[in-house]
This record gives sequence, structure tokens and C-alpha cells, in this order.
Amino acid sequence: MAQKTPNARERFETAALTLFAGRGYAGTTARDIAARAGLTERTFFRYFADKPEVLFWRAGELQINIVDGVEAAPAGLRPLAAVCVAFEAAGAFFDANRAKVAARQNLVAAHPELRARELMKGQSLAAALTAALRKRGLPEPTARMASEAGVSIWQVALEQWTADPRSRGYSHHVRTALGQLEAAVVGSGR
Amino acid sequence: MAQKTPNARERFETAALTLFAGRGYAGTTARDIAARAGLTERTFFRYFADKPEVLFWRAGELQINIVDGVEAAPAGLRPLAAVCVAFEAAGAFFDANRAKVAARQNLVAAHPELRARELMKGQSLAAALTAALRKRGLPEPTARMASEAGVSIWQVALEQWTADPRSRGYSHHVRTALGQLEAAVVGSGR
Repeated sequence: MAQKTPNARERFETAALTLFAGRGYAGTTARDIAARAGLTERTFFRYFADKPEVLFWRAGELQINIVDGVEAAPAGLRPLAAVCVAFEAAGAFFDANRAKVAARQNLVAAHPELRARELMKGQSLAAALTAALRKRGLPEPTARMASEAGVSIWQVALEQWTADPRSRGYSHHVRTALGQLEAAVVGSGR
Repeated sequence: MAQKTPNARERFETAALTLFAGRGYAGTTARDIAARAGLTERTFFRYFADKPEVLFWRAGELQINIVDGVEAAPAGLRPLAAVCVAFEAAGAFFDANRAKVAARQNLVAAHPELRARELMKGQSLAAALTAALRKRGLPEPTARMASEAGVSIWQVALEQWTADPRSRGYSHHVRTALGQLEAAVVGSGR
């Protein structure tokens, strides 16, 4: 009963993305996804609290990698540079899974319910980043502000990466977003 | 039938905050709120799509004021400075209604469903800010990044304002958050 199914989450995810693309997000049930993955609905709900979570389970793993990256970033880097170094490392996953990640991003963008969940996951990432920056010696309100701005960079970079006709890497878009933020904070009116 | 009830939204809001404080958010229905306000449930749903919206209707008005403020800000101000000038003007409402706004903020913070809606309203504000900054001549991706960072400033400033034991004005917290963002982007490791 409690035995693990190898790669179950990945199998559910692949099945879900195929079905969402074919018959739409609303028209696909957890039971459909399980059948397509060759697994049971019961197994689906052993891994995911609800249907949409099949699109969000990676957020937790990415968050762990990002926090590790911030804690390991060279001392003396300014706070958002340390955060962006961590984003670039974690984003290697995106570049290696471009079609799947882009399909997911487009789905999330198209469904307000999924956008709301994405924003909540972003808040969880912001809280984890705040703790990681505090460990680097940053005082609390500054760490909080830097984390919120960091999540904005993460999200804008992912948007730009998804829409990029030249398919440049995620790192490129993180660095571009950080440069745009610098320009907005300290640059001229243009 | 279609006649307007003077200050209906404010009456519903005041009644809702009183009931949410007394018997909890989950334990209060739209019908309860209407009864407390001396109005009908039908009138409630003429003004609000659902119960939580009684806590969010001001977001649309604030957003209009903020966009007007960005468009009217002196030319040559750097983008986030223009956004913050607009936030400070709009935030006069917070200072003039401290008890009510703080009660609302604490409610939102305590309920994930309300936090999710707050984040969605933030996304709407970000989209409106992007359009306003484009009108100031900022190119699209920079305007997008500046708007997301602006919404982070708005939200962090509101958190700090709500929790401030010294009850300083909202403007103070906006300027502080902007300074913290500057430090995180261009400052040293600390």
C-alpha cells in the first residue's frame, strides 16, 4: 500500500500537461490524469492535495535550491545579486525542460485560479528568501524588501524567458531583469 | 429598485469589520453583514460579487488615484520615485483611517484566501502601473519590472505601517521601503 511509485510525480505531470493541452484545464479531472499516467486516482491524491498541485509541486524543490544558493553565495555580494546568483543556478532546470516549463507557464497565465496559487507560492519563496538574507546579516525590513523584489525578478524573468523568440537562457533574463530594476531605482527618468 | 443607497459600501464595510472582529471572518455571512448595516442581502450583492469583496472594493479607487499620481509626477523623476510619489499621495487615506485599515490588514494577513485575493489585486495594480510608466516613456520590460517592484514597496510599506508602534505616516514607510530596495540593489553586502 505504502510503496513508492518511481517518478510518479513526473508521470502525473507529463500526463496532466498533455491532457490540459488537448481538452483544456477545466475539462480534465484528477482521474483522467491518473488514467493517462497509468496510475490510480488514489495514488494521485497521495502525492497532490488537489488537481492544480500537479503544476506546483516543483516550487518547493526550487525554493530549497534557491535558499541553498543564497546561503552559499560569496560574502560581500549585494543582497539582490546574491539572490540572482541563486536564481540563475536553480533556473538551469528551466533551460533543460523548456517545452514543459513554457507549457506550464502559459497555462498558469491563462487561469486566474492558477495565477493566484502561483502568487501564493511566490509569497512562500519570499519568506524563505527573507530568512536566508537574515542569515547573511541583513536586517529584517531590508531583507523583507529585497526578498519581495527578488520574487518580482524571478517572475518577470520567467515571463520573459517563456515569451523569448530567441530562446535565450533563464540566466540571461534574470540578469536583464536585475538591470532593469537597477535602472528603475537609480537610473534617470528614462 | 435601482436607486442608490448613500454610502452603502462604507456601511457594509464598517458592519463587516465589526462582525469579523466579533464572530470571525468564516462565521459571518453576507446576510449578517447586511442586517448589521441595516440594508438587505440583495443590496450587498448589488455592490459586491462575493463576501470577501467588501474588504477589497477600495483597491480599484486607490489604483485610479495611484495611476493619476504617476502620470502627474514631475518629468525626470526616476521611475520608482514617480511611483512612490503617487503611493504617498494615495496613502493619505490610510493615515486618515488608521484603525479601520489596520483591522483590515490584520484580517487579510490571517486568511490565506484573503491574502490570495490581495495578491491578485496587486497584479492588477502592477498592470496599471506598467501602462502609466509606458506613458512616461519607459520601455516595456523596464516598466514591467519597475511596476512589480513598486507593488512590493506598496505591500511592504503597508505591512510596516500596520505594525508600527510609533504610528508613523504611510509616506514614511514608503520612503523607507524605497531606501531599503536601493540598498539591496546597489548597496554593499550589508
